[in-house]
Amino acid sequence: MLHKNRLFTPGPTPLLPAAQTAMAAFTAHHRTADFKALFQRVLADMKEFIGTKNDVLVLACSGTGVMEAAVSNLTSPHDKVLVLTAGKFGERWSGLCKAFGCQVEELKVPYGETFSLDEIRARLSSNPRAVFVQATESSTGVRHDIEAIAKVVRQHGDETLLVVDAITGLGTTHLDVDGWGIDFIIGGSQKALMMPPGLAYCAVSERAWKSMDKTISPRYYFDLRKERKSAAKGETAYTPATSLFAALGAALEFIRGMGAGNLAQGREALVNNAELCAEMTRAGAKALGLKLYASAPAGALTAICAPEALDSGKIVKEFRESFDAVVANGQGEMKGKIFRIAHIGYYDYLDTIGILGALEHVLARVTDKSIEYGSAVRAAQQVYARTMTEKRQLVNA
Amino acid sequence: MLHKNRLFTPGPTPLLPAAQTAMAAFTAHHRTADFKALFQRVLADMKEFIGTKNDVLVLACSGTGVMEAAVSNLTSPHDKVLVLTAGKFGERWSGLCKAFGCQVEELKVPYGETFSLDEIRARLSSNPRAVFVQATESSTGVRHDIEAIAKVVRQHGDETLLVVDAITGLGTTHLDVDGWGIDFIIGGSQKALMMPPGLAYCAVSERAWKSMDKTISPRYYFDLRKERKSAAKGETAYTPATSLFAALGAALEFIRGMGAGNLAQGREALVNNAELCAEMTRAGAKALGLKLYASAPAGALTAICAPEALDSGKIVKEFRESFDAVVANGQGEMKGKIFRIAHIGYYDYLDTIGILGALEHVLARVTDKSIEYGSAVRAAQQVYARTMTEKRQLVNA
Repeated sequence: MLHKNRLFTPGPTPLLPAAQTAMAAFTAHHRTADFKALFQRVLADMKEFIGTKNDVLVLACSGTGVMEAAVSNLTSPHDKVLVLTAGKFGERWSGLCKAFGCQVEELKVPYGETFSLDEIRARLSSNPRAVFVQATESSTGVRHDIEAIAKVVRQHGDETLLVVDAITGLGTTHLDVDGWGIDFIIGGSQKALMMPPGLAYCAVSERAWKSMDKTISPRYYFDLRKERKSAAKGETAYTPATSLFAALGAALEFIRGMGAGNLAQGREALVNNAELCAEMTRAGAKALGLKLYASAPAGALTAICAPEALDSGKIVKEFRESFDAVVANGQGEMKGKIFRIAHIGYYDYLDTIGILGALEHVLARVTDKSIEYGSAVRAAQQVYARTMTEKRQLVNA
Repeated sequence: MLHKNRLFTPGPTPLLPAAQTAMAAFTAHHRTADFKALFQRVLADMKEFIGTKNDVLVLACSGTGVMEAAVSNLTSPHDKVLVLTAGKFGERWSGLCKAFGCQVEELKVPYGETFSLDEIRARLSSNPRAVFVQATESSTGVRHDIEAIAKVVRQHGDETLLVVDAITGLGTTHLDVDGWGIDFIIGGSQKALMMPPGLAYCAVSERAWKSMDKTISPRYYFDLRKERKSAAKGETAYTPATSLFAALGAALEFIRGMGAGNLAQGREALVNNAELCAEMTRAGAKALGLKLYASAPAGALTAICAPEALDSGKIVKEFRESFDAVVANGQGEMKGKIFRIAHIGYYDYLDTIGILGALEHVLARVTDKSIEYGSAVRAAQQVYARTMTEKRQLVNA
């Protein structure tokens, strides 16, 4: 059968055609009025997309680059930091903080789990300079309760910064950056923004900017004070990835369209879309007797346990071979145990139903389980139908 | 929910990304060595795609343009012609032949039906200069038996040409152009070739070329003898739609890839894909208690009757509003009575399952029928699973 290459990975995610076109067409030099206008428009729109009044910077790097920028701009060697870690990306925070010489305290919970607020509160007594956490831990599909965590950190006081890796979280889960007092939040282009990798961004609070002056960690490319000064003049410190800015501009317009002209509402619609795709997928997986891996599952992706004694790599391989659909295996210690289906960004009803239909064939092929065709799909359809009915009732009320 | 604009219309059909990219990138002037090389490669590949040794011409026009070329190059005013008509496109043959002054004899069967070979044989006694027919009648979703019809026409003799509109047929149904003795076969770019409208093509037999010298109908843009002479020199008579040629080149490469490097096998794979999508869709529709409209359903599209007393326009509208999925209403007298879902070209498993899932919600919304979610999908999955099992057994045998 004909195969379309279909990404269901938690980044890179399917590309928005309008972003592809914009990217392909863009040729302007970066030190021109044309690029400056695009750059300024994009930075202003990014504030609305993130939902913050804080300064937003967009850098030519992957998400990890801006994670490093957070560490190198907000901590100095020997600074105490608290890393909340529940998976590969939590571990990345620890690795980064250690690379920059911080004294790292880890609050570590098993993969698939999230943190106890009481434990976080207890650990804050060491008065760390910053707390590092993920909004969603993509390696396990867990959603951390950033609202509650932020409340605990803010109650502790202004000396401790809250840094949130929301690379897969932004655009897939509701986040009130300013209201909750998040000092540094990070996103990437290849996620809910529906464009290729290559840009990563952050929103930085006034508290974080002030804290930066005390920092003595070495930094140059990722020196955010320099980027901030350049941005104020409508430019970047170093050569920007111009065509990706064009794609970003187009993606933001698309999201604005999802909000009937309002970008903030568009972002909420995008989040609701991911949440609905995720809920449909969870219902589908459960209907097939599969176990969900995450104790608090994210809207960004669904991590599903392979049936007992089956290597999840076989599921991933069968998806690829039979449907050219790319789902993700587990990472690190979870490799071979789970598989992950993403809902980040550019997915619709047909994608979601299609991948669940494909999952039924995949399981029929790689397990001995007797699969009732249509059962995962039906469970997802019921979620969809109920959600749409509720939405209509809301509109009519 | 996020909506992707999804065409399920029997042309235009979903675009192949590689064709879009090639089209967007192409800039060469048409009287250059670069374009000449592309043009000659495409014409040679088109012979393999169509499966013919006859001359192939590709013109800048819609399919109707080449239908006109067939009439104006192969008939003169007052010539007797036999038109086999079973829908809107059969009627187009009659309209064209009348416009060029032919004496039109129609063998007309009701919409949804196909022709009796005995009746065709009987009508041939009038010795028409040409017989005009569709391979698939897109207005009704009917597949005409071209192999059998060609046999009847060829038995009648060499004086009668067989002209087949295979605009939706090529790439969706098996056709042996030379083996069956089809004198003039027509296709269009916006169908199984997975590219936008703007090009139409034909393969012309030696018998048809000879017959053209007797023709006195007025023609200029569509004078195929002129195009043939130009093509022999590696160019077109008038300005070609250059970027569409680039798209066509990319589409042919994709189809070659479907045949593991063999274009003829790629075309067979494309046909089998459409046939499988069609079989899945028919099984899905039947599982929902819906009636198929065509007595002999095509691989190109499935025409489904709206439930009793329901305007099919409501189904079309609900598909559009809830899923941004564009399915076709009936045409002419069938408007409001049927809806049509296409399988022409760039469709895969996920598309087919997705649209059937959507159909279940659409029916739940616009009818009083109680819909068992997943039932259409399950029926389609069973077809898919059985076909794949058979294919594997064939490979292993």
